[in-house]
Amino acid sequence: MVDLRSDTVTRPTPRMREAMAAAEVGDDVYGEDPTINALQAEVAALFGHEAALFTPTGSMANQIAIQLVVPPAEELLCDADAHVVTYEVGAAAAIGGVSSRTWPARGADLDPDEIAAMIRPEGYHAVPTRAIAVEQTHNRGGGGVIPLATLERLRSVADDAGLALHCDGARIWHAHVADQVPLAAYGRLFDTLSVCLSKGLGAPVGSVVIGSAEKIEKARWIRKRMGGGMRQAGVLAAAGQYALRHHIARLGDDHARAARLASALAPFGVVDAEAVRTNIVPLDLTKASIDAPSLGAAARAEGVLVSVMGPRLVRLVTHLDVDDAGIVKAIDVLTRILS
Amino acid sequence: MVDLRSDTVTRPTPRMREAMAAAEVGDDVYGEDPTINALQAEVAALFGHEAALFTPTGSMANQIAIQLVVPPAEELLCDADAHVVTYEVGAAAAIGGVSSRTWPARGADLDPDEIAAMIRPEGYHAVPTRAIAVEQTHNRGGGGVIPLATLERLRSVADDAGLALHCDGARIWHAHVADQVPLAAYGRLFDTLSVCLSKGLGAPVGSVVIGSAEKIEKARWIRKRMGGGMRQAGVLAAAGQYALRHHIARLGDDHARAARLASALAPFGVVDAEAVRTNIVPLDLTKASIDAPSLGAAARAEGVLVSVMGPRLVRLVTHLDVDDAGIVKAIDVLTRILS
Amino acid sequence: MVDLRSDTVTRPTPRMREAMAAAEVGDDVYGEDPTINALQAEVAALFGHEAALFTPTGSMANQIAIQLVVPPAEELLCDADAHVVTYEVGAAAAIGGVSSRTWPARGADLDPDEIAAMIRPEGYHAVPTRAIAVEQTHNRGGGGVIPLATLERLRSVADDAGLALHCDGARIWHAHVADQVPLAAYGRLFDTLSVCLSKGLGAPVGSVVIGSAEKIEKARWIRKRMGGGMRQAGVLAAAGQYALRHHIARLGDDHARAARLASALAPFGVVDAEAVRTNIVPLDLTKASIDAPSLGAAARAEGVLVSVMGPRLVRLVTHLDVDDAGIVKAIDVLTRILS
Amino acid sequence: MVDLRSDTVTRPTPRMREAMAAAEVGDDVYGEDPTINALQAEVAALFGHEAALFTPTGSMANQIAIQLVVPPAEELLCDADAHVVTYEVGAAAAIGGVSSRTWPARGADLDPDEIAAMIRPEGYHAVPTRAIAVEQTHNRGGGGVIPLATLERLRSVADDAGLALHCDGARIWHAHVADQVPLAAYGRLFDTLSVCLSKGLGAPVGSVVIGSAEKIEKARWIRKRMGGGMRQAGVLAAAGQYALRHHIARLGDDHARAARLASALAPFGVVDAEAVRTNIVPLDLTKASIDAPSLGAAARAEGVLVSVMGPRLVRLVTHLDVDDAGIVKAIDVLTRILS
Repeated sequence: MVDLRSDTVTRPTPRMREAMAAAEVGDDVYGEDPTINALQAEVAALFGHEAALFTPTGSMANQIAIQLVVPPAEELLCDADAHVVTYEVGAAAAIGGVSSRTWPARGADLDPDEIAAMIRPEGYHAVPTRAIAVEQTHNRGGGGVIPLATLERLRSVADDAGLALHCDGARIWHAHVADQVPLAAYGRLFDTLSVCLSKGLGAPVGSVVIGSAEKIEKARWIRKRMGGGMRQAGVLAAAGQYALRHHIARLGDDHARAARLASALAPFGVVDAEAVRTNIVPLDLTKASIDAPSLGAAARAEGVLVSVMGPRLVRLVTHLDVDDAGIVKAIDVLTRILS
Repeated sequence: MVDLRSDTVTRPTPRMREAMAAAEVGDDVYGEDPTINALQAEVAALFGHEAALFTPTGSMANQIAIQLVVPPAEELLCDADAHVVTYEVGAAAAIGGVSSRTWPARGADLDPDEIAAMIRPEGYHAVPTRAIAVEQTHNRGGGGVIPLATLERLRSVADDAGLALHCDGARIWHAHVADQVPLAAYGRLFDTLSVCLSKGLGAPVGSVVIGSAEKIEKARWIRKRMGGGMRQAGVLAAAGQYALRHHIARLGDDHARAARLASALAPFGVVDAEAVRTNIVPLDLTKASIDAPSLGAAARAEGVLVSVMGPRLVRLVTHLDVDDAGIVKAIDVLTRILS
Repeated sequence: MVDLRSDTVTRPTPRMREAMAAAEVGDDVYGEDPTINALQAEVAALFGHEAALFTPTGSMANQIAIQLVVPPAEELLCDADAHVVTYEVGAAAAIGGVSSRTWPARGADLDPDEIAAMIRPEGYHAVPTRAIAVEQTHNRGGGGVIPLATLERLRSVADDAGLALHCDGARIWHAHVADQVPLAAYGRLFDTLSVCLSKGLGAPVGSVVIGSAEKIEKARWIRKRMGGGMRQAGVLAAAGQYALRHHIARLGDDHARAARLASALAPFGVVDAEAVRTNIVPLDLTKASIDAPSLGAAARAEGVLVSVMGPRLVRLVTHLDVDDAGIVKAIDVLTRILS
Repeated sequence: MVDLRSDTVTRPTPRMREAMAAAEVGDDVYGEDPTINALQAEVAALFGHEAALFTPTGSMANQIAIQLVVPPAEELLCDADAHVVTYEVGAAAAIGGVSSRTWPARGADLDPDEIAAMIRPEGYHAVPTRAIAVEQTHNRGGGGVIPLATLERLRSVADDAGLALHCDGARIWHAHVADQVPLAAYGRLFDTLSVCLSKGLGAPVGSVVIGSAEKIEKARWIRKRMGGGMRQAGVLAAAGQYALRHHIARLGDDHARAARLASALAPFGVVDAEAVRTNIVPLDLTKASIDAPSLGAAARAEGVLVSVMGPRLVRLVTHLDVDDAGIVKAIDVLTRILS
């Protein structure tokens, strides 16, 4: 099977497993797991922040950050396709009590002025806007990369209004590789970031939430309340450390493979190959003769797994466990189906 | 003072006070207040629904309805300027745990297809969309009236996706008068409605939430939880009954006065007089030589109160306590300020 | 009908209705209702506090206070029969996110040492205790009055642990009359109090939450979020003002009538007449030959309404609308049923 | 260091690490991790239930179960020392909106009649009681074991009132070993159970929530909302499988070591050796000449770590990483300090 459904499906490599098996561990609820502590320090440093906290999932990392920057009954702005309001099972409202308004989904093509116009200042009548969240790269936006200059303008908008800025950086590694922007250059623009060790980087489990020492101290409480205070989690952190050292630079290979897939499928009018910048290839079947569920089933029958994201929308994702042979096979299968 | 800030400022008329003083009352937590019961039955019948429940405010009526149609952690769609996500202090998220995404604010100019494209079906990964809320007339949309045909198309969209439709009908009376649409014609399109006795209709206190008998039975619990289970509330319901009988038809006068205001101010390029259809006159000062806070202060100094809604946005609202002389004075003051 | 179910059933008197009809009003969301403002100032002064806020119900007043003194996910201690965790439909947890632990219900017979032993200090592992709530008089505790000396000891316990103290004072007027303790003497012991104008005092609608100016400023936001931000609420406040001036001293009559009821029924072994100190007479039918629902139905058939609180528990409450003739009738009916 | 603070501090054994390194894994959000699936099936079968779900922590397992059995704004009964309302950072109220009342803490010495008397039936006025939670063994109750006969009586109480029964079984393995009760005999008494692989059993991370297939299907959503939907979690489940097979029977050794500790310290009047039935030894220093923080510091200085649970309360816990030599050392150090 060539599994292009998501980069979440990667399995730990033999050397990553060795690192896990050898990890020094302790009780992380007591703050005593040395591997967890080292990983947290390493990630914080990468992004130029004071502190960081390991979490079992990216959803928990995002939701902890949202609770850090938006009090209950106050407001978060994000786009209508953002992971934080779409794929996290309503947690921002249901757990954090956070009210949200959304700007129209345009993937990585943010308009800071449009966002600025949505901000409501603190006041007795209107719900006060407290934070803006962006997603880098943008999952439903086809892995698009928000340009650094756009993020800098958004930072100004946030500063002018006294708002916090959160980055859902599950795939910020891909943006870093695609745009050659240092992670710390992203880091300094955000009050909080979440980054994922388990998607593109290939660790089996784990994300990290990043921020000031004061925020991360509060984050420990929130994590415990949400049920994320694990014990000898160093076995997971060791995989994360390995991933940080060995699996970032190689993301360029995933991008190249996605570009190859996109170029091969572009002639069918289902994807703009130019727009594919990282490891996600969205297929828009609006004008195709086959719909998304049918294409998904046909591909599966031939050994290629894809994500059906809507009636006419399919997503392909390249990752650590898909090599050139897999891409050749996927192109072969998908071009036959689309022909 | 000519108070054009809002139609919430109206004071009960002498005859309304007489009705209140004479009201037969009982303990409404026990369901024994005859005036409350009669008002609820009357309002339900007006909109062609089975049942209705009196609430102390329109915010409570809306929030009860939202809790009726959207379970915690599931999703409500509304526009980015909707009262339910803007002026109700975050209650939908903080009290109901309701997640929200918004379409761009365009007042009464809804696009059912755009809304349809935002709906996410039930599923393990995405937050399921459960309901759509609209506002009739639309407060921040300048009192605009959503055409019945648009609402019918939206009902189809909701039906196709199995969603509930809620109407924030705080000023639905104005839509009814402006478009000559029977209240029951609106009523049959919505699963729940809230209507306000205290804004345009002039009662001192009270709104009503409307729906099926089963929903309103649950609504009584929610109202009690929110602290809205009043006792001898018939003293308030009597004012509401009076307002329903005597203050709906007269809304045409408020509309005419708003139109007169708009026509007088249109030459200054601050309002499109054609667009003013009910009792709200928004003044867009983007191209004016004065900003909103300055205009507000200058008008107040001359005996005219207006609402400052943004740095360059002012709102004027006509109502029961503003007569023709008030309009003449307001035109005089505002034209001098804008000149 | 002699209605002994609750003191919530009282109807406004003719002179109270006159006061309502003549009330000067304004828009209280804007803070412009003069009668509301005067009532709030009067109640704050009675209890020696800086500020107060009118609410549509006692439940809302209590829940606002709880949200003021306990942040979400932190802890309130109260007794297992307290109104705030029993009769307010789960609002403390569901709306305020407030965790609660309870000491065994003993009505007004509090043990400050037992409460002290339950307090958990702030810490990463345990939920920190933030406030203690007591009920004066105690509804399910048979209208018992907590002695001032006990409350003073409890204040010390709270001070030692840095906790807030809230008083659910729905019937604190009865304690004031029964124990001859000035309202301000109670007021100084609590960080927040709620008092009810609608139960013993006979106003149709309304309670008041009392505290520091800073707390009450926050309370306005919470009230609006909960849907309690009414407009021309002065019509209700006027009834409250009247009640404060004319209906406190007369509570002694209600207490005397309750005592008379208790003395008449004591021979049947269903009530300890000595323990009846205010306007509530609990009947414990454990050893009686009739159960509570049967007694309730039999009394109703003869024109006397009582509250069935459990399989063998009945409650009788005296109030403004029950005179001596009513008591004579109730004694006649109930003694016949119990014989 | 002899670490007697908690059985959470255990480190995975070499063979457990081997199992983790060799684990077959998949994406558990898609339900495709074979090791997770096998572990879940194994645990469900052990307790005679249909299904089970792996979670990163015991707190998450408990809180998922509570959300399964108590709707928001309804009520859970538990004891005042229960882990679910004491050590889970307010999650039941803050995340689940669950109201709680507590019976007085008496550890494993439950009184089903006392609990029965606290139940409030469904009704408009009172918060309806929906579930009862017990803790087996009881952490703050000194590792006490609730007798099977008591649990059976409690099940009857729950059945009579239509309530669900949840078992916080973090250390149910110890009860099983101490009382020789089959796990399935416990399992059939509860609607939901949580069990922990990471405390007594020594896995680095993980708990399991157990119930009907329908409940566990809902549990997957709740787990994802809480941020517990991990990906290749099979690396953790493999440790859990190993623990289930190799670390249950050996708990008898921990019990014997705890008994030895207790016997040695009993002469100082700080512990009732008879009451120590599992792996927890509570030291009550009320009558000792040293308080808990001082004892903790003195012991730490000599290489023995203990938990300070209150001003005069210390807890010692035996586990996989404390052998006989450790017990000898602990006895030596603690007897010297207490002398």
